[in-house]
Amino acid sequence: MYDVVVIGAGAAGMSAGIYAARYGLKAVVIGREMGGTANNAHLVENYPGFKSINGMELMEKFAEHLKSLGVKLENVEVVGIDRNNGHFTVKTAGNEKFDGKSLILAMGTVRRKLNIPGEDEFLGKGVSYCATCDGPFFRDKVVAVVGGSDGACNTAVQLAEYCKKVYVFYRKEKLRAEPFWVAKIEKNKRIEVVHNVNVKEIMGDKFVKAVKLDNNKKIDIEGIFIEIGGVPQISLIKNMGVKVDEKNHIVIDSSQRTNVDGVYAAGDITTGSNKWSQIITASAEGATAARAVFYDLKKE
Amino acid sequence: MYDVVVIGAGAAGMSAGIYAARYGLKAVVIGREMGGTANNAHLVENYPGFKSINGMELMEKFAEHLKSLGVKLENVEVVGIDRNNGHFTVKTAGNEKFDGKSLILAMGTVRRKLNIPGEDEFLGKGVSYCATCDGPFFRDKVVAVVGGSDGACNTAVQLAEYCKKVYVFYRKEKLRAEPFWVAKIEKNKRIEVVHNVNVKEIMGDKFVKAVKLDNNKKIDIEGIFIEIGGVPQISLIKNMGVKVDEKNHIVIDSSQRTNVDGVYAAGDITTGSNKWSQIITASAEGATAARAVFYDLKKE
Repeated sequence: MYDVVVIGAGAAGMSAGIYAARYGLKAVVIGREMGGTANNAHLVENYPGFKSINGMELMEKFAEHLKSLGVKLENVEVVGIDRNNGHFTVKTAGNEKFDGKSLILAMGTVRRKLNIPGEDEFLGKGVSYCATCDGPFFRDKVVAVVGGSDGACNTAVQLAEYCKKVYVFYRKEKLRAEPFWVAKIEKNKRIEVVHNVNVKEIMGDKFVKAVKLDNNKKIDIEGIFIEIGGVPQISLIKNMGVKVDEKNHIVIDSSQRTNVDGVYAAGDITTGSNKWSQIITASAEGATAARAVFYDLKKE
Repeated sequence: MYDVVVIGAGAAGMSAGIYAARYGLKAVVIGREMGGTANNAHLVENYPGFKSINGMELMEKFAEHLKSLGVKLENVEVVGIDRNNGHFTVKTAGNEKFDGKSLILAMGTVRRKLNIPGEDEFLGKGVSYCATCDGPFFRDKVVAVVGGSDGACNTAVQLAEYCKKVYVFYRKEKLRAEPFWVAKIEKNKRIEVVHNVNVKEIMGDKFVKAVKLDNNKKIDIEGIFIEIGGVPQISLIKNMGVKVDEKNHIVIDSSQRTNVDGVYAAGDITTGSNKWSQIITASAEGATAARAVFYDLKKE
């Protein structure tokens, strides 16, 4: 029996695991993808202590830190959560079961889709949700990024390092990224921001060839990176009675407790971080959640 | 005119400066001591990404990070804050003035004193509030630590590396540090924890020779490290109308805003962190404060 099973292996989940270990709790961190959303960041330049580091490298440091404290990091998808006699049973795609006195939910978000023709058809054939993963296949090609957030701008700057041209299609007048990214984009001659526009269709034959915009222009591209934010991954907790807000973020108190006894949440999946997905704030939330677990178990 | 003047150069203040720079704000970070309370930590093993690092070294990394973004770090004491025509003027001990549209208060805490006979008299002659600074002078000697928190236990473990014997005097039955530290202390043969006891007097001639406890025992020691927490450093803001709680922590909202327009606070000085002085949470608060400054200035 674990004191706490952490679901999700991004910044929030791994930080929760680190703190749980420091509190002497028996903990396991389970997640499909070590690193989570932070892996998509080409460069992280705002996690204090690291001037500039690749997102995946920073997450590897978190994972090493976690493992050095004796916490197991299980890279497998969680497929179900049961509640039995006051404890939780977490089931994985590998048919393993992990029993825990408490749960920290840190599943983060999945990428939001455009839901337009061609998006599913050309997935992996020019359509991508992760430039860090797929960008290098588009060397010297013309590509597009959809979105105006930090993630979108970071992606555009990254792609401009090796792509011939990078369009940024954004539905609003002004990019909403950190001014640091906006300035970088404005200075970059390979990047062209097209404002006030929505992508209506992704076209091609075997691979992506073009996009159609809602101003009826057709623009030739070979890759399109969709960076329009994330949707909280709450399917696992649908029947647990955990309270979520209107956008499906888990509602937490200042100690990261949910409304369900023994269930805590941290990171992008919560109301706390939803407006601002930062590694530093997600990590603080994970740490705080582990502390709440410790105090609540000690009370018993 | 700066967009924001950050007062305090610990984890919260430097993180605020890093984020302010990322937001394109003109910022300066001013503090008597680069690193603040974190400098006293012999080893930091819970800041995700660094398995084990000396507190001062981690703070130097924060300072390098800050400077790499072009933010000036002024190592000087702030002696006054004036409000003029809607902006703030911050005055330093070096008679410099810094005008800012906003302030982030991140002055942290000063060490709490025992207020017992001998404490002031033997300061620097065996009485210390910083083992990282003064510990090495007590090699092969018998010393004492007063307190039972993470800070106290960390200090005891550190001193036991080179002192002959380390007493830990704590007023309660059980140490309140992370179980990780408690376990380390229990295993260490050079450390003896004396529970349920208060130090009544520090005695000596030119230097400390002994302490008297409230059980009337006299114990011979040559050094005493007082680690009983901190008091928020709010003297600068006494006349500014900034709301504090009954323990003098600055009251903040979830975006780190105080009740005074243009004034934000982060780290140990706030109600948010007062129960839990962690580098990761102080850094998240600093980042969040900088973000609030950015959004509030943009609104204007």
